Amino acid sequence: MTKTIAVLGAGSWGTVLANLLVENGHTVRLWTHNPEQIPEINDHHTNQHYLPDFTLHSELQATTDLEAAIADTDVILFVVPTNAIRPVAEQVAPILAASGTRPIIAHAAKGLERGSRLRVSEVLASVLAPALHSGIVVISGPSHAEDVATKDITTLTAASTSLAAAKAIQHIFMNDYFRLYTNTDVVGVELGAALKNVIAIGAGALHGLGYGDNTKAALMTRGLAEITRLGVILGAEPMTFIGLSGVGDLIVTCTSVHSRNWRAGNALGQGQPVADVLANMGMVVEGYSTAKVVHELAEELEVDMPISEAIYQVLYEQAPIKDVIGELMTRAGKPEFDFRG
Amino acid sequence: MTKTIAVLGAGSWGTVLANLLVENGHTVRLWTHNPEQIPEINDHHTNQHYLPDFTLHSELQATTDLEAAIADTDVILFVVPTNAIRPVAEQVAPILAASGTRPIIAHAAKGLERGSRLRVSEVLASVLAPALHSGIVVISGPSHAEDVATKDITTLTAASTSLAAAKAIQHIFMNDYFRLYTNTDVVGVELGAALKNVIAIGAGALHGLGYGDNTKAALMTRGLAEITRLGVILGAEPMTFIGLSGVGDLIVTCTSVHSRNWRAGNALGQGQPVADVLANMGMVVEGYSTAKVVHELAEELEVDMPISEAIYQVLYEQAPIKDVIGELMTRAGKPEFDFRG
Repeated sequence: MTKTIAVLGAGSWGTVLANLLVENGHTVRLWTHNPEQIPEINDHHTNQHYLPDFTLHSELQATTDLEAAIADTDVILFVVPTNAIRPVAEQVAPILAASGTRPIIAHAAKGLERGSRLRVSEVLASVLAPALHSGIVVISGPSHAEDVATKDITTLTAASTSLAAAKAIQHIFMNDYFRLYTNTDVVGVELGAALKNVIAIGAGALHGLGYGDNTKAALMTRGLAEITRLGVILGAEPMTFIGLSGVGDLIVTCTSVHSRNWRAGNALGQGQPVADVLANMGMVVEGYSTAKVVHELAEELEVDMPISEAIYQVLYEQAPIKDVIGELMTRAGKPEFDFRG
Repeated sequence: MTKTIAVLGAGSWGTVLANLLVENGHTVRLWTHNPEQIPEINDHHTNQHYLPDFTLHSELQATTDLEAAIADTDVILFVVPTNAIRPVAEQVAPILAASGTRPIIAHAAKGLERGSRLRVSEVLASVLAPALHSGIVVISGPSHAEDVATKDITTLTAASTSLAAAKAIQHIFMNDYFRLYTNTDVVGVELGAALKNVIAIGAGALHGLGYGDNTKAALMTRGLAEITRLGVILGAEPMTFIGLSGVGDLIVTCTSVHSRNWRAGNALGQGQPVADVLANMGMVVEGYSTAKVVHELAEELEVDMPISEAIYQVLYEQAPIKDVIGELMTRAGKPEFDFRG
C-alpha cells in the first residue's frame, strides 16, 4: 500500500532511505535545511558530498519547505544528527498541531542528546505530544548507507513500544535487500546504536596506532560488555545487545571503512589533533558528543566503562592517545567474569 | 617461575605459542610428526610453510621424539588439529603412565571430533585418565597466530573445571602483549571456538559472492545467535558466547584475511569446488569437519541453525552456494526475538 512519507535530513543515510522508499513505490518528500542540495537532488539526481557516484531515483524530490514536506503524511522519518532532533521537532510540532494529521514518527539517529542525555525517542516524545502522532519508532542496525545504495542485503530492527507502529514501518521499508525485524526494547536498541559509536572511535584509534586484528577483536568484545553493562542499568534488555542493533551494528561500525566514527578514531590514532579530525570529517561524528554523555552517565551511575572513558579522555581532556590506549589494552589478567562485569 | 612445557604440533599456532613460551623464559620442547620441520626450526629458526617471514627464538628446539618431548614436563599443550587429538593423546598416555609425572594438559584446538562429536577436552579426558594429569585447560580467544607473532596485544580465555590449573596456564603464558583471563565454562569456551569456524566459512562465502559489510554483519549476528542456541542446549553458559572465546573469536575469524576458514569460504563463494578449496589450503580447515558434526547435532537436538546448515549443504550435499546463501539472507522479516530465538 502506497504511503506518503516525509524524510527529514538529506545526509547519506536520509538520502539513501528516501531513495529506497521511492523505489518501494511510496510518495516521498525529502526535506533539507540546505538550499544548495535542492537543484543537485531534484535536477541532477545526485548528492555527491554524502553519496559520491550514486544516482538517485529520478522521482525523488527534495525541498527546504518543512510545512510542505510534512503535510498529510503517514510517516515522518527523522534522519538528522542527534543534536538537531530537538530543534527540527520543535518546528514540526506546531505544523502537526495545525494540520490535525497523526503520522507515525520514526527516526534513524544514533546518539544521546547533549545536556539532557536523553535518547532520541525521548527527545521526540518530549516535543511531540501523544495527540500529534501514532507512535514513535526507531530504525537501527548494521547498515552503512553506501552498502544499502548498492543493494547489499541489510537487516535492521524497527523498535517501538507500539508494535503496530513498528510493523507499519517494517512494511513500508521491506524489500528484497532491506529486511526489518520488529522489537519492543526501544531503550536497548537506541542505547546500542548510540554507545557503539564511542567504541568504534576506539577501534579506529587502534588501527591508526598500528594494532592488529586480535587487539581490535578484544576491544570490540570488551566494548560490547561495557555498553551492555550501562544499558542494563538504564533499563535495556541484555539480549538486545547481542542482536542486530547491538553486536551487529558494533561489528559493522568497527570494521568498515565507511564508518565515520571509525575514520575519526583512525585519524586520531595517526596523530591528528581532535579539532582537525572533527573539522576534516565533513559530516557529524556522533560518537564525539555521545562520548561526553557516556562519561557523565558512567560517572553518575558508577558504571565501569574503561574504553568509553579512555576515548572521552582523548577527545575532551587532551590525554595522549598512545598512552591511553596502551594502558587500556594491557591491564592485568583476571577472571573473565570480572572482566565482563 | 620457569616451567618445562611440551608443545605438541608445529603448525602456525603451535609454533607461535612455543616461541612465546621460550620468550617468557620457559624450557620448551616443540614436537612435530614431520621430520622435515626439524632442521628448519632447529637450525634455520623458521617455519616458512606456516609462518612465512617469521624468525623464531634461537633457543626453540623441535623434535619428533614424543617420549623425549613430554618427559618430566609441567605442562603438555596439544596444538594439533582436532581430529589428531585422539591419536596423539593415545601415544602420550602410556608414556605418562610409565613416567609417573602428572602435568597439566592444555589444548588450543578449535573443533569437534568427527564421529564421536566430542569436544576436545572430552576427547583428552577419555584417553588420559585423571591419575595421569593435574587438570585439563582449554586456551581460546581472538588470536591469529600471525598477529601474535608480531606482538599484537592478544586476549584469550584459559578455561578449566580446575581453576588452579587455569591459573597456572594463565601465569605461564601471560606477558606484555598476551593476556589470559580465567573461566570455568569449558563447554561454552570449546563450543564457541568450534562452532564459529562454520560461521566464518559463511562470512567468507558472502565476501566471495560479492556481498558487503552490512550483510556480513547480519550473518555474524545471526551466527552468534545460532551457536549460542546450540551451546546452551549442550550445557554452556549463555554469557560465555559474548566473551572473548565467543563473539571475540567470531569477529576476528569472520573479518581477518588470516583466517583459513574465512579464506575457504571466500574461495567457495568465488566458485571453486569444495575439493579444490580443501586441497589448496595447505592447512586443516577445522570448519569443514565441524560443519558435519554441527549438522548431526542440530538435527538430533532439533535446534534451528540455518547458517550452519546452509554451509553443510554446500560442503557435503553439492548445494549451489549462490542459491543457498541468497535464500539464507532474504528470509521473511519477523519479530527480532523469534529471529534470535
